[in-house]
Amino acid sequence: MELEELKEIIEEAERLLEEKNFYALKLLLQEMEGADVALVLDEFPDKKIGILFRVLPKDLAAEAFVEMDSDNQELLLSSFTDTEIKEILDELYIDDTVDIIEEMPANVVRRIIKNSSPEARKSINEILKYPVDSAGSIMTTEYVRLDEDITVEDALKRIRRTGVDKETIYTCYVTKPNRTLLGYVTAKTLLLSDDEQFISDIMETNVIVAHTDEDKEDVVKEMSKYDLLALPVVDKENRLVGIVTVDDAIDVMEDEATEDVEKMAAITPSDKPYLSTSVFEIWKNRIPWLFLLMLSATFTGAIITYFEDKLVASIAGTALIAFIPMLMGTGGNAGGQSSVTIIRGLAVEEIRMGDILKIIFKELQVSILCSISLAIVNFGKMLLVDNLLFGNPNITVSVAITVSLTLVLVVIVAKIVGCTLPILAKRIGFDPAVMASPFITTIIDAVSLLIYFNIAASILSI
Amino acid sequence: MELEELKEIIEEAERLLEEKNFYALKLLLQEMEGADVALVLDEFPDKKIGILFRVLPKDLAAEAFVEMDSDNQELLLSSFTDTEIKEILDELYIDDTVDIIEEMPANVVRRIIKNSSPEARKSINEILKYPVDSAGSIMTTEYVRLDEDITVEDALKRIRRTGVDKETIYTCYVTKPNRTLLGYVTAKTLLLSDDEQFISDIMETNVIVAHTDEDKEDVVKEMSKYDLLALPVVDKENRLVGIVTVDDAIDVMEDEATEDVEKMAAITPSDKPYLSTSVFEIWKNRIPWLFLLMLSATFTGAIITYFEDKLVASIAGTALIAFIPMLMGTGGNAGGQSSVTIIRGLAVEEIRMGDILKIIFKELQVSILCSISLAIVNFGKMLLVDNLLFGNPNITVSVAITVSLTLVLVVIVAKIVGCTLPILAKRIGFDPAVMASPFITTIIDAVSLLIYFNIAASILSI
Repeated sequence: MELEELKEIIEEAERLLEEKNFYALKLLLQEMEGADVALVLDEFPDKKIGILFRVLPKDLAAEAFVEMDSDNQELLLSSFTDTEIKEILDELYIDDTVDIIEEMPANVVRRIIKNSSPEARKSINEILKYPVDSAGSIMTTEYVRLDEDITVEDALKRIRRTGVDKETIYTCYVTKPNRTLLGYVTAKTLLLSDDEQFISDIMETNVIVAHTDEDKEDVVKEMSKYDLLALPVVDKENRLVGIVTVDDAIDVMEDEATEDVEKMAAITPSDKPYLSTSVFEIWKNRIPWLFLLMLSATFTGAIITYFEDKLVASIAGTALIAFIPMLMGTGGNAGGQSSVTIIRGLAVEEIRMGDILKIIFKELQVSILCSISLAIVNFGKMLLVDNLLFGNPNITVSVAITVSLTLVLVVIVAKIVGCTLPILAKRIGFDPAVMASPFITTIIDAVSLLIYFNIAASILSI
Repeated sequence: MELEELKEIIEEAERLLEEKNFYALKLLLQEMEGADVALVLDEFPDKKIGILFRVLPKDLAAEAFVEMDSDNQELLLSSFTDTEIKEILDELYIDDTVDIIEEMPANVVRRIIKNSSPEARKSINEILKYPVDSAGSIMTTEYVRLDEDITVEDALKRIRRTGVDKETIYTCYVTKPNRTLLGYVTAKTLLLSDDEQFISDIMETNVIVAHTDEDKEDVVKEMSKYDLLALPVVDKENRLVGIVTVDDAIDVMEDEATEDVEKMAAITPSDKPYLSTSVFEIWKNRIPWLFLLMLSATFTGAIITYFEDKLVASIAGTALIAFIPMLMGTGGNAGGQSSVTIIRGLAVEEIRMGDILKIIFKELQVSILCSISLAIVNFGKMLLVDNLLFGNPNITVSVAITVSLTLVLVVIVAKIVGCTLPILAKRIGFDPAVMASPFITTIIDAVSLLIYFNIAASILSI
């Protein structure tokens, strides 16, 4: 639904609510998707959300509820009677219930648990016991289980009988009575097989599984790599405990991409959406990195201080100071390009540890091409623009050579540091994304200055 | 499949190939997933890939073929006889065939088209005519179409008859004979409905559709938002021309995330995996941005040159030079944190245009908290570490105040610039990701210096 359309619906809903025309309000909302209804509801002030919510048909209410801001979910749950909570819970998938529980304060959680059916309560507790970020924590326990000794006809009957509450019926799992996983059949296979065939004859026994404590990021990568709609989650005894469905995998993928981007920008990742994160929390996620990076600039400061007296003692030396930001900036950008390419390549598994030598050789060639192009343009620019056009006599050929030669070395060093550090980080079990631009930049800054002042010392004899 | 496992299989395959034990080779590979077989094949030298490939059962060969490096696909296609090409094409889905065609040189494309069935040829040409990055270009034409006046029983029969070649049978599309889209039914609905019910009675008429020329990024966002397994693609007359399936949507999502990360790191995005991109191409994707950013550093250079004489004329002024990298770096990092947060928020639609004032207010508060924390730590560090510990008498209280006060203003300006620029970029139809760190950094660098030298002028009267 387009933003414009959504705005119109919100205005219309406001008008109808004003007029207390609940029938028209219901007609307006009931044709919409749950995700859009959630967007509409989230726009209303606290007091009115409850009224709007109660207008919705039960199934749509549940669909919208899952997609709402957690603040508003809490608000609604607190205002619900036990019966209302029961009704909503009946419509929710177990994994969505768990997601909501994880965001709620203890008193709301108690009410959710109290009003769940005994089986649901068991499943909820089952999922809640797995560590955050594990396969177990994102799975659902609502899947279709089949015995291997039944026929296709029986299997289809079973799906018809029990399928309505399952998160997916398109992949059915075949297990022993003790739930040891034997294989799977897809709904497609079932539909395309003869009624009399036995499940054991048509099931696929080569199953890609996740273990309950496996990292959810790996689960998602497997699903993407093998184009799976669902992935079974098993315990240490290979007993099926749940499945991860592709819609949840997509959510994890998006979150992981956001986390990687945040780490590259020196932010401690957070699960919360920006607009509902408090100012204090945002500060807490950002300030440690700013401290670290600010204090690490002590090195560059110390290097400049050390050379300062020599620099300001000559006109040529003084002229060099103006090019420090350009050299550091270009080094940072060149290194950032390499590190981000490698970090992303590692994340999507296009690049592996074994490729390190290939990568260094490639980056070396790229950096030589880049650095020479930059040095030529910079040399021309310093003499033509800085010296001739702006008439700065201090920009001599020697100064231009010093800066350009530094540029060549800085870009080469930056690219090599930028591409090796993330791979080394990964090898020692560190997160490569944390090694990205800002961290690498600090190293490159210090190295750039040392190169610069040493070249200056030999060319300009300062 | 784990990396270790894969390595063992590659070694085993090498050994068996050496021994010409093709039977064992076939046994080894045939139980694997296509994606893994592709990884194995891609590790072998050019000459051996063809031999290995011909050992595979036909369906697995096709699955693996789709996942291989495009260089190796080209190699195989060039070595294939027309019959072999036909056999592979028969097993491929149309959208995968199109993806392969897009990477191949003209002579290979001609052979693919020549060996396709007439219907396939029509579909391929249909998909190829849509612009890159459009919904039409990522769709497949192999979907299940149903008439509205048939019964569930007939529909299931039709799926059984025609479903085997369709990319998905789980969402079936109901159209008029002229293909005008009327609605859809899921396989779940079909299985849970009575055999005698009519499709028109059970179909969902509220369909989320994409138009052929819609941006593929938007298509993927819709699928993720509404948890869809497939999305129908219609032309201007609302006639169904194809569908996008969730596995392809996931690939697009990954590519788009990579593109955004590349743009944030000042790289022109490319579709090709890093390792198969030539050095020259990598250079071409990186150098324009490095030129742009290097030349834009002319501003910072000019500002320093302008103030230089005043700076070096006093001891306090000279002392200030050493803190330029720290101030610029901290400004860049602080601004980068904000810009990246906003850019990612816009990309996943957590943040909308209308939120701009809320965001600026929030960032203002965060920046005040951050800047004051940083200034306090910096002030203490300059006096305790630089002055006392390192015994640098030039770091006076006035110098420390100048630097700390600049830090406060720089961080506030950086965060406000960092959060507004991406939103403004989006408003004027620019890509927000391009506005990220490096570009914003250039602005922040120049502003930082101006603030620094002006504060220095009034506090230290230089």
